[in-house]
Amino acid sequence: MDKIIEPKILKGFRDSLPEQEIRKKKMFKDLEEVFSSFGFVPIDTPALEYTDVLLGKGGGETDKQVYSFKDNGERDVSMRFDLTVPLARFIATNKSNILFPFKRYHISKVWRGENTQRGRYREFYQCDFDIVGSDSPSADIEILIMMKTSLEKLGITGFKIYLSNRGILNKFLKINEIRDKSAEILRIIDKLTKIGEEKVKELLKELIGESKCNKILDFINPEPDFDKTLDKLITLCNGDNSETERLKVIYKALKENGIEDYYVLDPTITRGLDYYTGLVFETFLAGNRDLGSVLSGGRYNNLASLYTNEQIPGIGASIGIDRLISALEKEDNKKPQALCDCIIFNIDDDLTGLLYKTAAEIRKKGISCEVYPENKKLNKQFAYAEKKNIPAGVIIGKDEKDTGTITVKDLIARKNYEKINIQDGIEKIVSIVREVKS
Amino acid sequence: MDKIIEPKILKGFRDSLPEQEIRKKKMFKDLEEVFSSFGFVPIDTPALEYTDVLLGKGGGETDKQVYSFKDNGERDVSMRFDLTVPLARFIATNKSNILFPFKRYHISKVWRGENTQRGRYREFYQCDFDIVGSDSPSADIEILIMMKTSLEKLGITGFKIYLSNRGILNKFLKINEIRDKSAEILRIIDKLTKIGEEKVKELLKELIGESKCNKILDFINPEPDFDKTLDKLITLCNGDNSETERLKVIYKALKENGIEDYYVLDPTITRGLDYYTGLVFETFLAGNRDLGSVLSGGRYNNLASLYTNEQIPGIGASIGIDRLISALEKEDNKKPQALCDCIIFNIDDDLTGLLYKTAAEIRKKGISCEVYPENKKLNKQFAYAEKKNIPAGVIIGKDEKDTGTITVKDLIARKNYEKINIQDGIEKIVSIVREVKS
Repeated sequence: MDKIIEPKILKGFRDSLPEQEIRKKKMFKDLEEVFSSFGFVPIDTPALEYTDVLLGKGGGETDKQVYSFKDNGERDVSMRFDLTVPLARFIATNKSNILFPFKRYHISKVWRGENTQRGRYREFYQCDFDIVGSDSPSADIEILIMMKTSLEKLGITGFKIYLSNRGILNKFLKINEIRDKSAEILRIIDKLTKIGEEKVKELLKELIGESKCNKILDFINPEPDFDKTLDKLITLCNGDNSETERLKVIYKALKENGIEDYYVLDPTITRGLDYYTGLVFETFLAGNRDLGSVLSGGRYNNLASLYTNEQIPGIGASIGIDRLISALEKEDNKKPQALCDCIIFNIDDDLTGLLYKTAAEIRKKGISCEVYPENKKLNKQFAYAEKKNIPAGVIIGKDEKDTGTITVKDLIARKNYEKINIQDGIEKIVSIVREVKS
Repeated sequence: MDKIIEPKILKGFRDSLPEQEIRKKKMFKDLEEVFSSFGFVPIDTPALEYTDVLLGKGGGETDKQVYSFKDNGERDVSMRFDLTVPLARFIATNKSNILFPFKRYHISKVWRGENTQRGRYREFYQCDFDIVGSDSPSADIEILIMMKTSLEKLGITGFKIYLSNRGILNKFLKINEIRDKSAEILRIIDKLTKIGEEKVKELLKELIGESKCNKILDFINPEPDFDKTLDKLITLCNGDNSETERLKVIYKALKENGIEDYYVLDPTITRGLDYYTGLVFETFLAGNRDLGSVLSGGRYNNLASLYTNEQIPGIGASIGIDRLISALEKEDNKKPQALCDCIIFNIDDDLTGLLYKTAAEIRKKGISCEVYPENKKLNKQFAYAEKKNIPAGVIIGKDEKDTGTITVKDLIARKNYEKINIQDGIEKIVSIVREVKS
């Protein structure tokens, strides 16, 4: 006998079982509906790329997490670790075939060899939407509106989008003659929620001294509302500048759309990543800030600098699919999921053709319908239907065949409708299924 | 200045541009609709698995094509090269959480380092649907019906499904005392379309001598219809056996569903792969047999033997996504694809908020609507709309704002509807879009 291989999965990787996969597909479908309703188009890029194309001059913290290897042709290749670098590469490669402003979305898997002890996965989905080729406030507004619309489409309520503008902070740092420390300061502020104000204060004091540290803490401390916070920022920057003007335009548009309450101006938002140049934002679910941001991003005005000297501005947002799924799963678990609407039981092998013919009739009404493929004991077939949460059942035996009828079973209410004519039976199935779905 | 990296893609890999990606997503959506209407559920598995789990004892021709490497933890890992091996592994891993008969589908990317000179890609989609855990003729029938329904859903006409049964051929080989040469004989017959009858004759003669070669050529030569071919096979096998009985049951059910014309009993169909044990099938488009089979598969009655001693029977089919896309593209290219239904042009930056508010109103009618994000020259904005094949346009200037109206442009018929009230304008947009889509 051959040796059996243990069917084990790599650490940090997961199978997706039907219930999970259905939920994920529904989520993607909802998001894609929103994205295309805004005129965004989908793209895809290869899972494998040349290592130097993905990692550039390399050497950073990310690189250690990337799956890199030599392929059979001795090329250095890597699996993509995000969808932003491939977007930049895609744009540089396809520049002449792309229509700008380019509004695209991309939902796909990425891979990172992260430390699984922190509960991270090594294979996960990213979902990004971006407007590339426009530096206008209008593009900022569109992305902000899409963020709200996307989360609402997923049935998420009680979220707030916290936004800020790196340009304003940088202006402020310049006035206070600490612009050269910008990167470190941004990174320290970004840790505020994680390490707390005291620790941030300590780190800033060490870096730039107490007086400037206090100025920054004042700067990032939000006022009670958007306008007041913006006013303070303007004052601290010695008057308006192009970035504060832009925030005014953005906020005015949000108000005109009656959705301003979803947005909070919060100067503590900086985003860790280097490539953001203007607006930055994060989204937290009410009462679930520990989950982290579920939808983040910002404006980057030099996206494809690795591949082209042309300056290409853009703004984009990325949905934390795994975080949202885990937040939504808690809700959804209350309700059992029907994996099929209707099942035709098998009690007579001679009738197989008729069972499939009847199933085809039922499907015409938009009802998913499966045929149990074996003439097993009925209680086995019922148990199968119950585990799949199928609400409607059909029995067709010799009697039904001879009289041109079917027997319909309401598997939830446990009621039978014996030997009714086929069209009435199908109507009955439709109403049973509709009842469950309502 | 930093050195620019050439944004090149690996040979055998492709970007998917919006038009292609939309077409592909539409295709997957249609297929998923069919699969779930039959009560099939989706699963997913990791892109990376342990090499020995994917390749088993290894050493075959496939292995050289697999992307294998050592990960950062020095584990031997491989990228999946099909969806059948992962299905077997999935079933062995999740046995206790799976409900049998397990009807699942899986649409995902796989990777093979194939020779790109033959026009093959190294990254491509597979789309499989299987019934695992049942050896009944009913399961065979269901898969055959789903094949037809899937292709019809994609708008494909004029296809035929060619089927055969390996069990019958093996029976025949046994009677003729050449059962031990079964694998070689199957492989030679499988090449018939590619190398022609003369060459097959030559190879068979060499293997088993002229008289037995002629018997096989007689066996695989189809009669004018299903019943006559089956009768001949029964005669050549010295009477009925369980496999010929099964074919009778299958054909009877197809006839009872009025779809028997789509199916051809063709004993030349053998499928190259070793794991098939019963029914095998391939699908060719009328007048396009050169494209190869677009939908193939068969019954395997020992799927997970690499991972478990339990015998798990199943039957499945795999859609040749790339082949179908190339066949459908020829059709689709006739018709330009609208990447969005409606565009709101930008002629006044002060009105941005109103543009997004109007866009939201339009979307409520199921019309996708984008806002041009910059106040550029109108002819530039028109050119953008034309390249995206957008049929309806909206202009909102100060006049429109003050009078609570919009100007609607039929961009196909080049007609304007100036300053009409918003609700009438939206109705106009709906009718322009409906016209184009009809």
